[in-house]
Amino acid sequence: MHFGRHISGQFNAELESIRTHVLTMGGLVEQQLSFAIQALHKDDIDLARKVVRDEHKVNAMEVSIDDACTRIIAKRQPTAKDLRLVMAIIKTITDLERIGDVATKIAYVAIETPTNSEKQFQISLEPLCRQAISMLHQVLDAFARMDVDAAASVYKQDDKLDAEYEAVIRQLMNYMMDNPENIPDVLQVMWSARAIERVGDRCQNICEYIIYFVKGKDVRHLGEKDIDELLKE
Amino acid sequence: MHFGRHISGQFNAELESIRTHVLTMGGLVEQQLSFAIQALHKDDIDLARKVVRDEHKVNAMEVSIDDACTRIIAKRQPTAKDLRLVMAIIKTITDLERIGDVATKIAYVAIETPTNSEKQFQISLEPLCRQAISMLHQVLDAFARMDVDAAASVYKQDDKLDAEYEAVIRQLMNYMMDNPENIPDVLQVMWSARAIERVGDRCQNICEYIIYFVKGKDVRHLGEKDIDELLKE
Repeated sequence: MHFGRHISGQFNAELESIRTHVLTMGGLVEQQLSFAIQALHKDDIDLARKVVRDEHKVNAMEVSIDDACTRIIAKRQPTAKDLRLVMAIIKTITDLERIGDVATKIAYVAIETPTNSEKQFQISLEPLCRQAISMLHQVLDAFARMDVDAAASVYKQDDKLDAEYEAVIRQLMNYMMDNPENIPDVLQVMWSARAIERVGDRCQNICEYIIYFVKGKDVRHLGEKDIDELLKE
Repeated sequence: MHFGRHISGQFNAELESIRTHVLTMGGLVEQQLSFAIQALHKDDIDLARKVVRDEHKVNAMEVSIDDACTRIIAKRQPTAKDLRLVMAIIKTITDLERIGDVATKIAYVAIETPTNSEKQFQISLEPLCRQAISMLHQVLDAFARMDVDAAASVYKQDDKLDAEYEAVIRQLMNYMMDNPENIPDVLQVMWSARAIERVGDRCQNICEYIIYFVKGKDVRHLGEKDIDELLKE
């Protein structure tokens, strides 16, 4: 019915502007996560405080992009692929904001347990963190190009992240059993590890939205195999 | 521009039908959570398995309501309050689905640690669970009536849930320090407690969507005080 209306140059410009904002928000979230993890590793309280201070920027971006999406729906009445783009964006920014929350949580751990707990326990979250940040970076890249194959590839990396997470938890658990007096501090590191593992799940969600936009099919709650089948079509 | 279009009886019927589906989904999620917790308390593996088996019903409802919302936007081009309702629903079902995930996680803990771990540790998650289920029940009720005052009241209850959670964590931590050999099992109960605490945050999100729908203002990332101010207007 309204098909073709989106040929309007103004509408296209508005959609492009929203997409650019999502990528800016993604970049900020990536930076927040990266700074938070750096603060935890290097015991850098100032950097951790900066992450906490900047959280509101991520939140404000979420609210502003959400508002722009609602306005574009009301004003432009997008259908088909345009509407799917707006829907994909609305969901993507929710996950990005939650990754921003993870960064803040880790920053608080860095502030509250100032004697570089990780080193103290001889356990490093670094490989886990590196993987999570890499997944986030790649999914933002896939989003920028709306590349389903790249999205499917990121999706599959979550298994590796989960395995790394399990290994970290096992190490921390053994450390706890040998050093029960350190349990409160170890638990803080454990919560951080779990939060980082959840970043992978959030990245998987964003992969699903990219596939939904491009393929027009909601692949949430499907398995990897079904997603592969769909992408072959 | 399109104002008044929603006077169409058919459109109203469609919106009503979607709202009813959200409430059905909410009811199912509440039941899943309640069964999962019961399974954990009473060491009822069959009930826990039922929760795991029924997870797909919650997921299917999320996908189907989401799809109905997208179709209503494309077909009816809602604006103003109608559009806000659709947006509030899209976000609400995401949080409901995540509460459904919590139920499944707790059910898995009940299956994997079959010797009623809670009793064993002489620590009960029951008050925490009761509060979380009560918040969920009340927020669904507020959603059904789109009652902002009820939503604001649920919003405030999260502080109590957090305090109860902190108390449980402290007890479990002390137990761990005294009985390091039980750390793996205690951690399972700790993860469950944390998942239940997150249910409160999800309920707060739904409160925010109710306020957004009724008041037309996005109150995410505002504090309780600002929300109170807004509701006084």
